[in-house]
Amino acid sequence: MSVEEVSHYSVEQFFIAFALILIVSKLFGELAERIKQPSVLGELVAGIILGGSVLAVVPSVSGMSGYEIFHILAEVGVAILLFEIGLETDLKDLIRVGFTSTIVAIVGVVVPFALGFGSILAFEKFGLLSGIDPSLHILIAITAGATLTATSVGITARVLSDMNRLQSGEAKIILGAAVIDDILGLIILGVVSGLIESSKSGSGEMAISAAGVGFIILKAFGFLVVAIIIGNLTSKRLFDLIDKMRVRGVLLLFALAFALIFSYLAALVGLAPIVGAFAAGLVLANTNQFKPIEERLKPVSDVFTPIFFVMVGAAVDIRVFNPFVSENIPILLIALILFIVAVVGKFVSGWTVFQKGINKTAIGIGMIPRGEVGLIFAQVGLTYGVFTSELFSAVTVMVMLTTFIAPPLLKIAFSGSDEEAEESA
Amino acid sequence: MSVEEVSHYSVEQFFIAFALILIVSKLFGELAERIKQPSVLGELVAGIILGGSVLAVVPSVSGMSGYEIFHILAEVGVAILLFEIGLETDLKDLIRVGFTSTIVAIVGVVVPFALGFGSILAFEKFGLLSGIDPSLHILIAITAGATLTATSVGITARVLSDMNRLQSGEAKIILGAAVIDDILGLIILGVVSGLIESSKSGSGEMAISAAGVGFIILKAFGFLVVAIIIGNLTSKRLFDLIDKMRVRGVLLLFALAFALIFSYLAALVGLAPIVGAFAAGLVLANTNQFKPIEERLKPVSDVFTPIFFVMVGAAVDIRVFNPFVSENIPILLIALILFIVAVVGKFVSGWTVFQKGINKTAIGIGMIPRGEVGLIFAQVGLTYGVFTSELFSAVTVMVMLTTFIAPPLLKIAFSGSDEEAEESA
Repeated sequence: MSVEEVSHYSVEQFFIAFALILIVSKLFGELAERIKQPSVLGELVAGIILGGSVLAVVPSVSGMSGYEIFHILAEVGVAILLFEIGLETDLKDLIRVGFTSTIVAIVGVVVPFALGFGSILAFEKFGLLSGIDPSLHILIAITAGATLTATSVGITARVLSDMNRLQSGEAKIILGAAVIDDILGLIILGVVSGLIESSKSGSGEMAISAAGVGFIILKAFGFLVVAIIIGNLTSKRLFDLIDKMRVRGVLLLFALAFALIFSYLAALVGLAPIVGAFAAGLVLANTNQFKPIEERLKPVSDVFTPIFFVMVGAAVDIRVFNPFVSENIPILLIALILFIVAVVGKFVSGWTVFQKGINKTAIGIGMIPRGEVGLIFAQVGLTYGVFTSELFSAVTVMVMLTTFIAPPLLKIAFSGSDEEAEESA
Repeated sequence: MSVEEVSHYSVEQFFIAFALILIVSKLFGELAERIKQPSVLGELVAGIILGGSVLAVVPSVSGMSGYEIFHILAEVGVAILLFEIGLETDLKDLIRVGFTSTIVAIVGVVVPFALGFGSILAFEKFGLLSGIDPSLHILIAITAGATLTATSVGITARVLSDMNRLQSGEAKIILGAAVIDDILGLIILGVVSGLIESSKSGSGEMAISAAGVGFIILKAFGFLVVAIIIGNLTSKRLFDLIDKMRVRGVLLLFALAFALIFSYLAALVGLAPIVGAFAAGLVLANTNQFKPIEERLKPVSDVFTPIFFVMVGAAVDIRVFNPFVSENIPILLIALILFIVAVVGKFVSGWTVFQKGINKTAIGIGMIPRGEVGLIFAQVGLTYGVFTSELFSAVTVMVMLTTFIAPPLLKIAFSGSDEEAEESA
């Protein structure tokens, strides 16, 4: 028998919501596969259906009862996914494509930022920003541009994993670029919030210190380098020790704890927890235990990762897409333009790759989804009062469109290179 | 990068607490096994150390930031454990020992209740209840007696599972008795809260309706019978369908969702969710898919179940055990007497079994741990103002002692029957 306080989210409510997340995400995942789409697309759609704007089974908005727990489990889910992907990735391969990845990441940040910034200024010319304090326009343009720089590696990594493409050259470049992109995003977020704060302080000047930016860069790179070096030095001895323990589940749980601690440390230096989880996977990929870890991690990953994709889908408020509501039309118009800019901006990044036999299109598409990272940027814009709620909605729609369009496009892009591969064979 | 509201339990806090739960519980589990104790004892000790009264890493008290999420995950953990145990249990075996289990359960409820009731009245004689409104004494005796009737099947089941004893005759009788005990507990809880409420309403009379009790019984048995019948009728077809799906992880996730839904339905009729999870396992044990389900469920169970045992341990406030604080002495005295009564009361239930070759001692010990079910009863006593905080502490100490003493005693009891088995062989 269970006695629960009424004010809290009860165990029973959680049980049924969790069951529905598992069932509906797998049903739509299956449906997606049947129509030759990646199953993650089905999970995102499942999220929309379960989310606040349709069935409201899954708490989709912060402050909603039970939101916190699913939000945290979603973060665990995407961390486990990236840990799994790190396990399947050879650090040496990543370093080998390091230069290429860096270029892809930088172009994939600069071009979308410039295009986003320009678009907002163009909207100003066409009077779409009328009613908004003109002194804010530059700040809006900068924040919108920053939102366009994000890359959600979770979506692309999942598609690559589902397609058994994680060992391809394209996958290495995308994963490397996504990690660098997260560091760049961190810098941009630091700069943008610095700009916003100095602008709000009323000096009228937008100033940020070069030392501040330098410190962010140092922290982020420092974490990655130190984590991977110390991890490589200690992990072998640690897992040899674990090998001697005989209690049930010890290998899996220590590996998972390892990933969680790396995620925690990444968050401490301001990076996304998933970057830490990915680094943990890279480290353990070098130990002799990685096969059994991978095997036992799979069912755990199967349970947690759908929560992440469902929660991303649940954040979509589909009412914004209704064109028959006149207030939605400018939102949708702005969203559409930002979306085009977002796609083009990342797409060109793929074309900076000059390696032979690499599918440039696939890389460009792989960088497109903004996912949860884009939503975090948009949230900052809203919280600091830079975005109006309309602009926030438009940016959110852009983020969602990029997230939903990437999986099917990626599948098409890779099936093209399958044919090429077959022809050349 | 992650933007978290400061007022909430952050993702990072959760990550590090979760990692520590996994590491510390396995370390102490290993330590316990090395000194020939069941690993679950180590996990309980890990909980004490991580809990509020020592390191405060794990939120151990309702209202503490992050408590809700670990509480819910702990419930998921124990539900998965009972689901797993249900999967390994043959319903026919349970029905075969049904009569024996019923007798064990009834004796294990009546004797501890009578002894507990009597002890409290004896305390009254010795003046240990002075300062408490005399009109409450009978109610206190009833509520304390009721707390003594509880059985936490989670602890025993885990020990049996760790010792590979789930297929033994003793295990079937204990599992059956624990399920019946939960139903009896439900009735007692209904009756006790009815008595408390009618007493509080000031009529001075303590009255409960026979129809009310009958309804509780009907609901509980009805649920079990209907769930198992409908489950058996539909599960084969359902899992044949799932067999045709090709999306990753579908079998595991549907099985887990099945368990969660059964747990939810059990909670709806007022039963413990774990009873529903156990019933779900019984149903799926009959499908041809149960082997792969069991295999994939194991790592998931490994991740979730330690949270439950750590949370049970974390609920212990060890400061109460300090005999150098004078206020603790009457609490410890009452706790000690209740503890003896609690052990004796359940122990005799094992001796009602007249089947040959059955280890009566092991059954009696298997029924001893009160675990989380006992804590729920104690909580009701406190919430309704029947227990003073001292009495609540004493009852909690009794619950904890029974929970901690059962695993080592059970191991000893079974090693005795190992020798018998060897001798007769």
